[in-house]
This record gives sequence, C-alpha cells and structure tokens, in this order.
Amino acid sequence: MDFAYSAKARDYLERLNAFMAEEVMPAEPIYEQQLVHGPDWTQWKQPPIMEELKAKAKAAGLWNLFLPEEEYGPGLSNADYAPLAEITGRTPMAPEIFNCNAPDTGNMEVLVKYGSKAQKDAWLEPLLAGEIRSAFCMTEPAVASSDATNMQATATIEGDDVVLNGRKWWSSGVGHPHCKVVIFMGLTDPTAEKHRQHSMVLAPLDTPGIKVERMLPVFGAYDGPFGHGEVSFTNVRLPLDAIIAGPGRGFEIAQGRLGPGRIHHCMRVIGAAERALELLCQRSLGRVAFGQPLARLGGNPDVVANCRMAIEQARLLTLKAAWMMDTVGVKGAMSEISQIKVVAPSMAQQVIDAAIQIHGGAGLSNDFALTALYAYARVLRIADGPDEVHRKLIAKLEYKKQQAKFARSV
Amino acid sequence: MDFAYSAKARDYLERLNAFMAEEVMPAEPIYEQQLVHGPDWTQWKQPPIMEELKAKAKAAGLWNLFLPEEEYGPGLSNADYAPLAEITGRTPMAPEIFNCNAPDTGNMEVLVKYGSKAQKDAWLEPLLAGEIRSAFCMTEPAVASSDATNMQATATIEGDDVVLNGRKWWSSGVGHPHCKVVIFMGLTDPTAEKHRQHSMVLAPLDTPGIKVERMLPVFGAYDGPFGHGEVSFTNVRLPLDAIIAGPGRGFEIAQGRLGPGRIHHCMRVIGAAERALELLCQRSLGRVAFGQPLARLGGNPDVVANCRMAIEQARLLTLKAAWMMDTVGVKGAMSEISQIKVVAPSMAQQVIDAAIQIHGGAGLSNDFALTALYAYARVLRIADGPDEVHRKLIAKLEYKKQQAKFARSV
Amino acid sequence: MDFAYSAKARDYLERLNAFMAEEVMPAEPIYEQQLVHGPDWTQWKQPPIMEELKAKAKAAGLWNLFLPEEEYGPGLSNADYAPLAEITGRTPMAPEIFNCNAPDTGNMEVLVKYGSKAQKDAWLEPLLAGEIRSAFCMTEPAVASSDATNMQATATIEGDDVVLNGRKWWSSGVGHPHCKVVIFMGLTDPTAEKHRQHSMVLAPLDTPGIKVERMLPVFGAYDGPFGHGEVSFTNVRLPLDAIIAGPGRGFEIAQGRLGPGRIHHCMRVIGAAERALELLCQRSLGRVAFGQPLARLGGNPDVVANCRMAIEQARLLTLKAAWMMDTVGVKGAMSEISQIKVVAPSMAQQVIDAAIQIHGGAGLSNDFALTALYAYARVLRIADGPDEVHRKLIAKLEYKKQQAKFARSV
Amino acid sequence: MDFAYSAKARDYLERLNAFMAEEVMPAEPIYEQQLVHGPDWTQWKQPPIMEELKAKAKAAGLWNLFLPEEEYGPGLSNADYAPLAEITGRTPMAPEIFNCNAPDTGNMEVLVKYGSKAQKDAWLEPLLAGEIRSAFCMTEPAVASSDATNMQATATIEGDDVVLNGRKWWSSGVGHPHCKVVIFMGLTDPTAEKHRQHSMVLAPLDTPGIKVERMLPVFGAYDGPFGHGEVSFTNVRLPLDAIIAGPGRGFEIAQGRLGPGRIHHCMRVIGAAERALELLCQRSLGRVAFGQPLARLGGNPDVVANCRMAIEQARLLTLKAAWMMDTVGVKGAMSEISQIKVVAPSMAQQVIDAAIQIHGGAGLSNDFALTALYAYARVLRIADGPDEVHRKLIAKLEYKKQQAKFARSV
Repeated sequence: MDFAYSAKARDYLERLNAFMAEEVMPAEPIYEQQLVHGPDWTQWKQPPIMEELKAKAKAAGLWNLFLPEEEYGPGLSNADYAPLAEITGRTPMAPEIFNCNAPDTGNMEVLVKYGSKAQKDAWLEPLLAGEIRSAFCMTEPAVASSDATNMQATATIEGDDVVLNGRKWWSSGVGHPHCKVVIFMGLTDPTAEKHRQHSMVLAPLDTPGIKVERMLPVFGAYDGPFGHGEVSFTNVRLPLDAIIAGPGRGFEIAQGRLGPGRIHHCMRVIGAAERALELLCQRSLGRVAFGQPLARLGGNPDVVANCRMAIEQARLLTLKAAWMMDTVGVKGAMSEISQIKVVAPSMAQQVIDAAIQIHGGAGLSNDFALTALYAYARVLRIADGPDEVHRKLIAKLEYKKQQAKFARSV
Repeated sequence: MDFAYSAKARDYLERLNAFMAEEVMPAEPIYEQQLVHGPDWTQWKQPPIMEELKAKAKAAGLWNLFLPEEEYGPGLSNADYAPLAEITGRTPMAPEIFNCNAPDTGNMEVLVKYGSKAQKDAWLEPLLAGEIRSAFCMTEPAVASSDATNMQATATIEGDDVVLNGRKWWSSGVGHPHCKVVIFMGLTDPTAEKHRQHSMVLAPLDTPGIKVERMLPVFGAYDGPFGHGEVSFTNVRLPLDAIIAGPGRGFEIAQGRLGPGRIHHCMRVIGAAERALELLCQRSLGRVAFGQPLARLGGNPDVVANCRMAIEQARLLTLKAAWMMDTVGVKGAMSEISQIKVVAPSMAQQVIDAAIQIHGGAGLSNDFALTALYAYARVLRIADGPDEVHRKLIAKLEYKKQQAKFARSV
Repeated sequence: MDFAYSAKARDYLERLNAFMAEEVMPAEPIYEQQLVHGPDWTQWKQPPIMEELKAKAKAAGLWNLFLPEEEYGPGLSNADYAPLAEITGRTPMAPEIFNCNAPDTGNMEVLVKYGSKAQKDAWLEPLLAGEIRSAFCMTEPAVASSDATNMQATATIEGDDVVLNGRKWWSSGVGHPHCKVVIFMGLTDPTAEKHRQHSMVLAPLDTPGIKVERMLPVFGAYDGPFGHGEVSFTNVRLPLDAIIAGPGRGFEIAQGRLGPGRIHHCMRVIGAAERALELLCQRSLGRVAFGQPLARLGGNPDVVANCRMAIEQARLLTLKAAWMMDTVGVKGAMSEISQIKVVAPSMAQQVIDAAIQIHGGAGLSNDFALTALYAYARVLRIADGPDEVHRKLIAKLEYKKQQAKFARSV
Repeated sequence: MDFAYSAKARDYLERLNAFMAEEVMPAEPIYEQQLVHGPDWTQWKQPPIMEELKAKAKAAGLWNLFLPEEEYGPGLSNADYAPLAEITGRTPMAPEIFNCNAPDTGNMEVLVKYGSKAQKDAWLEPLLAGEIRSAFCMTEPAVASSDATNMQATATIEGDDVVLNGRKWWSSGVGHPHCKVVIFMGLTDPTAEKHRQHSMVLAPLDTPGIKVERMLPVFGAYDGPFGHGEVSFTNVRLPLDAIIAGPGRGFEIAQGRLGPGRIHHCMRVIGAAERALELLCQRSLGRVAFGQPLARLGGNPDVVANCRMAIEQARLLTLKAAWMMDTVGVKGAMSEISQIKVVAPSMAQQVIDAAIQIHGGAGLSNDFALTALYAYARVLRIADGPDEVHRKLIAKLEYKKQQAKFARSV
C-alpha cells in the first residue's frame, strides 16, 4: 500500500501547478472580461487569451494529458492523470487550456479506440491539435435520459446512407465557434437485442438538417463560448462510414466512453472543492465580526474541518477508482466509478455552498469563482447518470457480492 | 389552539389564489419574454405585462396587503397576511404585482412608522400607489456586514445638511427604471452609545454624488429589471429633514424594519418550496424510466415525503412566529423570528434542489422556475442576517431561558 | 389561527408541571434504586414508590388524562391532552403514574370503543383503576411485521371456542407482575376479504398454552418491570366472547387504536427531547474547557439552536395532527399522523444524541436519563410502523393530492 | 500509488479471516451464554471459551499483531496491521482473542517505549502473554476531560514515594478478574511548564487506597467481564520507580500512546460497520414485505449504497493515516489521525443504525450483535478525545496550512 503519487505524476503535477500559478490564475479575470455573455450564442467568440494559453501549455508539454495512449501524448495512466485533472478543476477555464476538456476528451477517446483511419484523420487530428471543438448528442428533452433505452432519436440506414432524426439537448460545447462536429447517438435497429440497437454517428455541424435551436442556461448562466445546446436533426443524411465502428455498437462505445470521463469529472470537482476551501479559509481569516476573525467564530472551524474531511475522503475514493481502472479495468471498477460519481459532486456542492456562505453576498456574485464552481458540481449530479441511477447500481452490486458471500458460507 | 386561518385570511386567500391561477401564472412566460437580460442595467425596462397586472390587482383589492395599518390597505395582521405572502412566493414576479415586494415593503413600513408628513407625502404616497420603486442601502462590500457595527459609511451632519459618504452593495431594486429613492444607513456620531450612532437618510437616486457602479449577479443571473446594485456615495449633500426620525435612530429603525420582513421572506420561500414540490410530483408522475414512473422508483417517494414534512414544519413555525408578532410583539418573538430565518430558506433550498434533481437537466435550465426559486432561497440564507448570526441569537436566548429555569428550580 | 393552549389544557398543564416538579422528578433516583434489573423477569417487582405516586396522582385528579370520553376521566381532547403527554415524556417512569402508559392506554381505548359490557367489566375497570396492567400481542418474530398482512398467528374458531396459536414478540409490559391480560391478534378467516381476516382476542395471561418465553433487551437494557416479551401461544382455547367486537374486525380495531397512540408517543418523545436539551444546556453552562464554559465553545451554540428549532417544529406538527384528529378525524389526519411518526422520534434521537455528546462519558451512563430517553426515541422509529412505511404512505397521499390538483387545473 | 495490501498483510489477513470464520464467529453465542451480566462486577468471570480461543490464536501465530516492534510479535507496520484490526472489529469479543484489545494494547505500547527493565518484567511480560489485563486511569468525573489540563488527580512526590489521590472513571477493563494493574495519570508539579506537570504511574490494582467504586453502564449494558469502572485513589503510596519514564512525562507519553490506538479503534469500528452492512443486506434479502424482499423496497437500495460509500471512504482515510504514521510519524499525521477519529465512528454509528432499522425490533435486541457494535461506535465519538476537540484541531491545522500558502503566494 502506497499513497504517494508516482514520480511521473509528481513531475507533471509540479509543472502543472507552476503553470497554473503563473499563467492561468492571473488570466482568470482577463478571460472573464473577454467573454461574450448572454443567450445569443451566435455572437460568442473564443477569448483571445485562451488561444494564447493553449499555445503556451502545448509548448510546455502540458497537452492532451488525459490520454493513456503514449502515441498521442505523455501517456499517463488514470492514476497518474487523476491528480492533474484535480488541478485543472480549480477554474472552469483551465481544462481547455490543456486540451483536456469534456466532451472533447471523451470524443477523442472514442475516436482513438473505435475510429476508422479516415475518421481519425478528419476529426481526431484537429481535436488533438486543439484546432476544433466537438459535441456529444445523446440526451433528449422528451424522455427520462437516466434510462438510456428511452432514447427516441433515430439513425436509420437507407442504402449507402445513414439518416439522423431527432432532438437532443444538453449538447455541451455545441455553441463554441470552433465546434465543427458532433457525435450523435440514435436508434438503428429496434429488432436487434437491447444493447445492439443504437449507433454512434460523426456528423459535421454544418450538415444540412442540423439546427442548433437554442442554448440552455444553468442557474441562469449560459456558459459561453461553449454553451449547452438544444439541437434538432431533421433528415440529416450522411454516408455509412460516418458511423463509428459500424451500426449497432452505440451502447458498447457509450459504456467505454464513460469510465475515464467520470474519473476526470470527479477529480476536477474535487479540485473545485479544494479551491473553495482555500477561498473559505482566506476569507474567514481576513474578515472580522464581533471582534474576531470569522475563522474563529462559532461553528466556522467545524465547517472547515468537515470540508477537509469530506474532500480527503472523496479524493482517496476517486484515486482508488482510477487505480482500479488501471489494474482491473472498467468492469472491475464499476461499483467504485459509480460511487465516486455520487460522492464527489455532492461533496463539492456542500463544500462550495459552505464557502459561499462564509463569503456572504460576495460569494453569490461573480467576484469569486464560487457560483461557477457550484454550478459545475450541481450539473454533475445529473450529467453522466444521475445519482439515483448510480446508487441503484452500487446497491445491486453490493447485494450480488453479499449473496455470493452467504452462499459460500453455507 | 386553532390551526385554521381566520375567515378574513381565507377570503383573501381564495381571491388571491384565483387571481394567481387566472392572471399571474399564465403571464409568467410573457414576463420572461419581455425581460431585458444581462448586466447592462441601463437598458433594463419594466415589462409592460407587469403594469397591466398591477392595475388588475389594484382593481381587485389585492394591493398593499402587507401593511397591518388599515389606513393604507386591507389592514391584515401578520398571521392573516402570512398565507397570502406564501402564495406570492410561487413565482418571483408575483410580489410586485400586489405591491408587496421587498425592499419597498420594508421601506414603506419605515415611512409609515417613522416618516414625517413631508417624507410620507414625497415618498410613501407614490410607493403605496406603485408608481415608484425604492432601494435600501445598508450592506457594504468592505466589511463583514453580519456584524452591523462594522458599518463604515457615514452620514455626517454639517450645519443644516447631512452628508453621505461610503460604498454600499446588494442594494436590491436599485436597477429598476422606476427606482427613485434609497434609504441610506450610515454613521453619524461615533461618540454616542453603540446603538445610537447611526442614521437612516432618504436620498433621491438622482442626488449628485450617488453613482450606481454596477449590478451584481446571483449565480450568474442579474435579476433585471430590479437588480442588486453596488452604489457609491460621494459627498452626497441633503437637508437635515432627509433623516428619518432624526439622527442616531438608524439601529432602532433597522430592528423594527426586520421583523415583518423576515416573516414575509420566509412565507414566500415556503411558497417557493411548495411549488417546487408540485413540480417535482408532476414531473415524476409523468416521466418513465426502467418501466415505471419516476414517482415509484427507488427512493423517490422518500424524497417526496421528506419534502412534505419539511415544508409543513417550516410553515407552522413561521405562522407561529407571525402570530407571536401580533400577540407579543417583535421582542417576544425574537427567537422564533431568528428560527424561521434559519429554517425556511434552508428547507426551501433542499426541497428545490430535490425538485431540480428529479427534473434532470431541465431543472437547471430556465424551462422551469426552479433555479430562480433556488437562488431566492439561497440568497435568503445570507440576506437579513446570515444563518450563523441567527443561530447564535437563538442559542443565547435559549441559555438565558434555561439559566432562569435552573435558578428557579434551586 | 391561535397557537395558545386552551384554558382547560393550561390548567391541567400547570397542575401536572407542579406534580412533576414536586413528586415525580425527585422520585426518579428512588424508582431507579428500587428497580430489579436484568433479564430474569420472574424476579421483577413493582417498585413501591410507583404505587405511592399513582395514589397521589389519582388523588390530584391527574388520572386517565388520555381518554377523550368524559365518562372515564377529565375528557380532554387530543389537542388538550397533547401538551400533558409531552410533560410525561420527560422521564420514562412518568406515564404509569398518571395511568397513561402504553400499551394500556391503547388497550383501554379499544375496550371503550369496541368492548362488550362483560369485557369492560372484566378488564376495562381494573385497567382504569390502575390495578392491573396489560399487553398487546401483534408483532411476530418470523416475518416482517411492517407489512401487517404477513401475520402468521391464528385465532381459529372451533365451535364455541376461539383457539390461538402462534408466536409474538415485542409484547411490551408483559413482564410486569401486574400484567393480567393480553390482546392477541391473529388470522381467523383466510378466505375473507384482506382486511376482514383477522380477529383481536382478550386472553388472560394465565390461560393454559400462553408462555412468556423471554424478555428482549433494547440496547442491552431490559426495561423491567415492564419488559418486552416474546410470547408463545399453543392451542390457547377461549370462549368466543373473548373476541373483541366479533371475528374479522382485527384490522379495523388496529387502525382506530393507532391514531391517538401515535400522537401520545410523539408528544412524549418531544418531552424527552426537551428534557435532553435542558440537560445539554445545564451541563454546557456548568462545565469548563479551554478556559470557557462548553456553552460558548465552537459549534456548541449551533447545536443548541439546531435542537431548539427541531423541537419547535416537531411539536407544532404534532399539535396540528392532534387538532386535526379532533376536527377532521383519523382519516383526514392520516398524512399528518404518519408525518409526526417519522419526524418526532428522529428529531428526538438527534437531540438526545447531541445531549449525550455534550455530557461526555456521563451521558452514556445511567447517571443521567439520556440513554433511556434515547432508547425510547430509537424504538419509536420501528414500533407502530417503521419510518419507511410511514414515508411511503405520506408520498402516496401527496401524489394523490397533486394528481387531483393537476386534474382540476386542466 | 498502490492501493493493494502488502504480501505480508495479505498473508495474515487470509489466516485471520479463516480463524474468524472457523473459530470466532461460531463461538460468539457460546461466549454470550457464558457471560455474567449485570452491574455486580465482583461476580464477573472470564468465560472459559475465551481462554480456549486465546490459546488457539497464540498457537496459530495470530498474537500481539498490533506491535510494530519485531521483538514482541510479527512486527507489522501500522499499514499492515490496519486491515487485521478491521477484521477483529466484527465482534466485540475478537480483539482479546488475539491479545489486541484496548486498553492493554496502549498500555503495552507505553511499556515498550517508556518502561524500565523492571517495569517490563513485572507488567509487560504477563500482558504480552495474555496472563493479566490492565486499565488506564485518566478521565475524571468532576471535570471536562476533553481538556486534559483540567485533570485534578495528583501524583505527589513525597521522599522516595509517589502518592496518588483522585477519582477516575471510564477506566475500561478494570472490572476484569484478570486485571492486575492500572496506569494512573496525575498532577505532579503544578509549577512546571504546562505539558511537563503530569506523571504516569503503574499502580497494582491491589495497592491499599485503590477502590473500584462501581461499574458504569453504556446504554444500560455493563460490558462484563471488562467493564468501565469508577475508581477512587486515596493516599495510594508507591515507590518512585512506579513512575513511567520519570516524573513530568505524562503528557508526552499520552500523546505517543494515542496515535496507533486511534487507528486501531477506527479500523475496528470500520469492521463493525462492514459487518452491520452484511447483516443489513442478508436481512433485507431474506425478508419479504408488500410482496417484495426488503432489499428492493423503496429507498432501501439507497441505504445500502450510502453505507457502502461511507465505509469505503472512511477505510481509505484510515489506511492513509496508518501509512502516514509509518512514513511521516504521528506528528506529520496529526490532522489525518484526528480526521479518522471523527469520520469513522460517526460513519459506523450511521451504518449500524441503518442496519438496526432494517432488522426492526430484532435489531434492537441481543439476537444480533448490532446494539453492541453501535455502543462501541457511539462511545468512540467521546473516548480518546470527543469529535469537537478533533474538529478544532483539524481546523487549526488547516488554517495554518492555508496561511502558509497565502504567505507564499504574496
């Protein structure tokens, strides 16, 4: 048993921390200033500071850190990348700087594992280079997406074409001016067995029939220049080779896509919580009420202690899940991955809420990053499977394990 | 002991409910559409539908319901107004329709109780008529406002003038195009005894030296056309008769102002929670996953039961606090008023969060009112005294009571 | 709306409080000393102090307060008795003093409402006089009793006899040397409709075939001289007129029996929480650590405030449920009765646990009544329907209400 | 980073698990039967089965596993012993079987590190052999022991003697018929600096002036044959060499004593929680209500998932604390040790409470080990420093860390 990060992870961590301190955190207010706010996504622009930072990060070798395949980057294991992902969670602007932001990371993983040579050339290369962005169109407005089999959109094969129809939403990143392609998931063959009915299709965003209907706000904020889009697909016709790995493999790809992504999300949200706790301490050490710094008043030290304990525990569980991904694979780590997906965002929601409270009104405004971090944590309790579905799975696996144990003990 | 609302309250409740169902709720999307969003408050406009609804409410006798004085309205007691306030909490747009929105209500109460004839003529009359709006400038950005004695702004008496200096923020409503006056609180005499040092001053918004610096977002939303302003006061010179009730009475007025306001806020936030629970039930009865309506799945019924119990308890406590205000006064109800201020917003935050969760992504967007209601609840845990200060007071009163009891029992 | 207790309730409350202060609380250590502890129930004796106190309470007119029927006592409504029940919850020994202890109260209610003249003469009279005690045999060890239809014991009619077979447990009070009779519930006619299959039978404890197998501890304590018994019934033969209200009415009687009992339990557990909070305050005001009384240290004032708010809310909800029982009946108060059954014991469990924590080791010992009060609260989360079943019912009623509302609004 | 136990730990774990399954768990009811219950500790006897099991464990090489020094046993690191301690937490009877039970373990550690040759010969040898038991007399009834400087007992040096006076309680194990010696802590020199004033003294239990006054129950259970004693010391005169490591070193020894002990306690309580979750699953898979196994009903799967997540997190945090003890020492692991002391017992309390709830009445009785495990968890929130003190320390260290960080970043 060894809780120390590997030498490789420590080396990257040191460099990443330095880059964050010197380049990223000072740029946070500049980025905020260069942003075009509001729901009209057609006016959104990439803030110039972002492209500058991307270039610097690439030059510093802090690029595509998330991919375990050495062919495409430093080739870090999940356990080694996890502490880096945590650091990029400290500010919503960081992941893109290192080309490590969802949903592009998941889309790149899909292309690495399942993409044809042509698909890789067309989309993986520019994504790896950070030249374009992408989106993932799975969730639908008309049905409970927590049950993926509810999906109503179709990817029908007609001769040499696949034809996409349906309405998707929460397609994050689709509002970005650099977004050029989406991965669309739809029903291809309702007569096939349950998990072989759907396909994933690469659809260039300018294909006729694709329409971004609107951007969806989260707590009133539109998250430009990425955004969360509602997108309609009306008789979108594409050649058959736009299908990733062939028809009917949608569920298989979706499953593989989610494991590492959940670890990334959880580590980032832990980084968000860690930053919130820092802000909480800084504020409460610096403000005085009733003759004492807030840090000493009433139950505030308890709040700090509770936050620290919650963060530590969630981090250890997430690191263990990452280590299991590396050692026993997604399947062996199924319960742990669901566990962190429940634990980390809830923990972060509570820690950030506590930090908001200590900041008073300031914590609710944009003067601190707290509400943006909060929104991220809150969204994660729904995205990539709501807490409810993960708890259900954890219990199912637990019952199974206990039943096996009792069977053995008889 | 009688838990039934009075006949008078029931009559108003019935009429208010009918008005809400026929006029207000159908107008919610129209109002939303007519709003000018974003941080540039100089562009904000009063949505025309609001003025139409105000006229209808006034005609229906549903106007200025909050004032116990019969001279200015129906003259409802706190206990009778409480259930009405609850109903107006169902949508953020409702209170203004009935001229019952903060901070105008508190400002009107102050003028009724402490205003001179001239002050009443100038400001109370148009406020009662709903012709103008007002703001309240107390909280400051540079200090912990949870301890009111931290206040740094000054209201210095120079000959026949009072001169205001300082910086205030979270001055809600100051961005409204109808806002014409603010009540400013500042230090007048640092040598007086602790609670006789401050004054409250009526300052027309167009007085030279007053500058609205910016609007503050809450979770990224700017709440136009009201807004929450940061306002600077630089040598703002006003005649002495702009001081309400004379110099040094600021704390006395602030104390009296807060009791009813806290009950109004708490009842409204209970109404917000009640609506969230309705939406939660409606959504979970209507959506299907894993072959069943969400309403039946896993722990969802427990969530509903927990929400119901939490709402019932918070409502009873708030009604009791209102009844105590009517029967034993603010001073006798001090613990109860602090209790509801802690209980109701926290309860609402949890209930609305649960409703968001059941809605999935939709709950985070503006397609439902949930995030706006959530922001209201979250703000209330800070505004009018943060939870921490109220809990401290509750404990202090409890210790005092217990010590008296032990003293008696010896 | 009026939150004040009635004049009648206030009068009884004053007298009861005086009796508690003068007679009961000083006798608590004497009673404890006179108790025979341990699992061997055959050695248990009624502590003499109890009979003295019963005589005094009877003389003081504080007797059989729980029965709303004027024929048998002061005839207090549920709303009027509720605050008295609260006071008797301050010490586990109190209810018996006033002849107001479960399960005798429930059994007396059953006899008042459903008993024949002969049954009343034989059992109700001595119970009302406090001359004998009784038990209620419903819960069974072999099945999940949360679902009452699981019941396996039988009350078979054979000619002029009813024959009881089965095994019951958690038959509280059956170990008392004064216990002379039990009410047994069993299956009579499996072919009848679901809620007409069971009967309730009055069985003298010395009837051949009844055997008290053992006493069950709660957290290791055996609660003598009452105890919680496991009782076997083997061919227990009784005349048909031992059946209460005739065969097949068991469920009907059980339903009616539970409403008032739940209010009594909840009010008592609120009294237990109130006493725990008093002890908590007293201890934390009197003990010093790190140079300050515990009352001032860290988050302790928050603990006090949280306890106060939780108690107030639970009490108001319980009082409202009692008032509804009086005004709209058990059926109309169904949701509220289930709500208090979930809310009050959980609240008390938390408040008492907090009081234990402030007392340190002393709180875990018998030097304070805290662990006994804790056990009472904990038991109540299971007895008379576990929390889970009550939440299920609350949700069901909520869905029904919301569906009706939506139907109306279409 | 490596979350796998070491080969050595895995080997011991396998053997320990086998021994638990074959020898210990089947003996649990026998031990229970052989116990002498009740408060009269003079009647307590060592159940014969315990001595049999001790002999078997010793023969199997599963003896004194807790000591890192190879001289006295297998020489396991804290990280390697931690998973073994967890297993021994599954039943209260287990630790003694392996000679790994508190407070003897802590006392042996003290003697190993600070004992003289004579002290080791006299007390360490028979303790290591399991021939005698010991107690630790630190906590006092008259003061808040959470602040150790409150201690009032004295260990006064008079010529060649040290004279002990004072009253201690919660001296666990002092009721055991094998208990022969206690370690007493008292004030020696009130003029010395704050943490050099106290001494620890080895006092044979039969020394004149030592009187075991009574045994203290926990939730009504007396935990024989160990017990928790209240002990008076009246002019107990001992030679100076009874002082461990010389006068004035009491605090230093106490500090060193607590680190490993806290890890042992936390791991055992995690084992208790793990067993409770097994029982919970077993019961809920085996009982049926409303037509389904409890395991499927309502929120029960959520309960299981929540328990699983809480246990995993607490275990990882405790293992990390153990690893830090081994790698950076008690001082470097100070925050983590306080963290686990707060996290693990609270977690266990909740998990075991959930298991009790699923068992219904059976869970409250002695038919399952749940209430005994619950009492252990509850006691731990007070023993070895109450939660409040640990949270205070965690916050203090956090503030210090954050202040250093901010200082660096300026």
